[in-house]
Amino acid sequence: MRIAFTTKLPAEGLTRLQGHELYVPLPEADILVSTFDKPVTAAMIASAPKLKLIANFGAGYNNIDLDACRQRGIRVTNTPQPVIEPTAELAFALMIDVARRVSEFDRALRVSGLGIQGLGTLDVHFAVMNNLSHSLYGKTLGIIGMGRIGQSLARRAVAGGMTIVYHNRHRLPETIEARYNARYVTLQTLLQQSDYVSLNLPYTPDVHHMIGKQELAMMKHTAYLINTARGAHVDEQALAEALQTGVIAGAALDVYEHEPRITPELLRLPNVVLSPHTGTGTWEGRIAMCENVADNILAFLNNDIHKMNTIL
Amino acid sequence: MRIAFTTKLPAEGLTRLQGHELYVPLPEADILVSTFDKPVTAAMIASAPKLKLIANFGAGYNNIDLDACRQRGIRVTNTPQPVIEPTAELAFALMIDVARRVSEFDRALRVSGLGIQGLGTLDVHFAVMNNLSHSLYGKTLGIIGMGRIGQSLARRAVAGGMTIVYHNRHRLPETIEARYNARYVTLQTLLQQSDYVSLNLPYTPDVHHMIGKQELAMMKHTAYLINTARGAHVDEQALAEALQTGVIAGAALDVYEHEPRITPELLRLPNVVLSPHTGTGTWEGRIAMCENVADNILAFLNNDIHKMNTIL
Repeated sequence: MRIAFTTKLPAEGLTRLQGHELYVPLPEADILVSTFDKPVTAAMIASAPKLKLIANFGAGYNNIDLDACRQRGIRVTNTPQPVIEPTAELAFALMIDVARRVSEFDRALRVSGLGIQGLGTLDVHFAVMNNLSHSLYGKTLGIIGMGRIGQSLARRAVAGGMTIVYHNRHRLPETIEARYNARYVTLQTLLQQSDYVSLNLPYTPDVHHMIGKQELAMMKHTAYLINTARGAHVDEQALAEALQTGVIAGAALDVYEHEPRITPELLRLPNVVLSPHTGTGTWEGRIAMCENVADNILAFLNNDIHKMNTIL
Repeated sequence: MRIAFTTKLPAEGLTRLQGHELYVPLPEADILVSTFDKPVTAAMIASAPKLKLIANFGAGYNNIDLDACRQRGIRVTNTPQPVIEPTAELAFALMIDVARRVSEFDRALRVSGLGIQGLGTLDVHFAVMNNLSHSLYGKTLGIIGMGRIGQSLARRAVAGGMTIVYHNRHRLPETIEARYNARYVTLQTLLQQSDYVSLNLPYTPDVHHMIGKQELAMMKHTAYLINTARGAHVDEQALAEALQTGVIAGAALDVYEHEPRITPELLRLPNVVLSPHTGTGTWEGRIAMCENVADNILAFLNNDIHKMNTIL
């Protein structure tokens, strides 16, 4: 088969596609491997008359014009499984980083040690009552969106000594709740009771700005917000104001409302940790996602429809 | 009783000492609350003729001249329990931070967003194959020193999908090994097999520079070193050279050989995360340590010797 790609992907994840022709021009392609950050428009689909499958690299697939695929009978697959652990791992990393002030201390030690100006100041004098932070241990984590990523985060948090409350469209079976000793609560209760609030739900228009000024005001003044889901879940300007005025204690963000732009106030705040949309971005995760793409393609070619991660 | 302190400690942790006179001058004190960062010398002890107890705030007590205490029959206590979870939490925070490059990305976003010079550069362009890091999930963590802190770290690491190998003076009982599915290995095997190596053993002169040029050379080129124990465990100059030349992939350090001085090369390296000796430094941990100090004092006054964390 002749396979086009929207992005160059690591060869070590694509060895299962040996014998196929990779990186052909889209108009000649039987199959397109798309990546979650690149739009696949109706015009692109129209330019590829032989296209039978779009194998998306990523769990989210709102980059693809599904209507155009439907009209042509083009199948679409995604890679939901390999994104779970890397994304939950980053959510936990951001939460523990903002609580224990790791990035802030690292920056302050470098800034003061190297005499750098313009990144704020912090007393990094080593002493017993200096440089204090907050524990995760003994605190309550509220998880909004208790799907596979939310549960993977819960597993880490329980081992870290945290209590779990969660909000989800549907309450989970009791056997799953028991695994994390997790309590199902309303969104309002979650915001009021949690020391850390993590967003782990997919983006749909009905959850646009689900965390705005009003919701931030419901949170504890000592609470932290963690977002590794999608930027538009949060009213980013309202968040920056809440962080500047002490409505909440801090935030850790991997996603932004207007990526790659970050609300400038956030870049100056010490009580914030920022990462560049890298939830799934480990080498190990990228290779596993490639392998999932390759397996979807091979299953399609073998007509093993039950082995495909089928969207369309 | 009249109680002297080497450091002002949070009042909310000392409410159990109500009725006693706090912060008296040392020469008038019956009891001294010392903190782990302040030496308690023979001269200080000689200046306090009424002194009967030194209640140290901290697990380590090499700040205290124990010989001088012995000669005077002064008892010494410490606070081993409340330091466990905060220290293991920070070790995990540093490990996940260096693996997922959180501090590095946060710094790079601020430096590029604010136009700051002198802290290095990094392409933080948001894209699928940019800003990649490494997972903890699926990797091997080697823990050197599998006491209570090492085991607390292991609990978090297992939940994060890691495999545990450990080295310790004595092999642990199989029931404890089974809890973490941990395998006892020689130091050399640990260094050769681990993707992450964490130091969690107390400092004694026989482990001075236990990680030097030779040990670093045994580690994988892709491995990371995490030190939240004591700086002198590691030959810091050899570590800086190993990090600069790619002998190992990175390091995350809370402690330094010559605190508060940090080997300057470390401040410039992107593959390093630095924190200012803050393993036990959470507000929650500090208050719990104060309560432990107060309980040791009350047990001493009630002659409840079995309730004291007795060193001498």
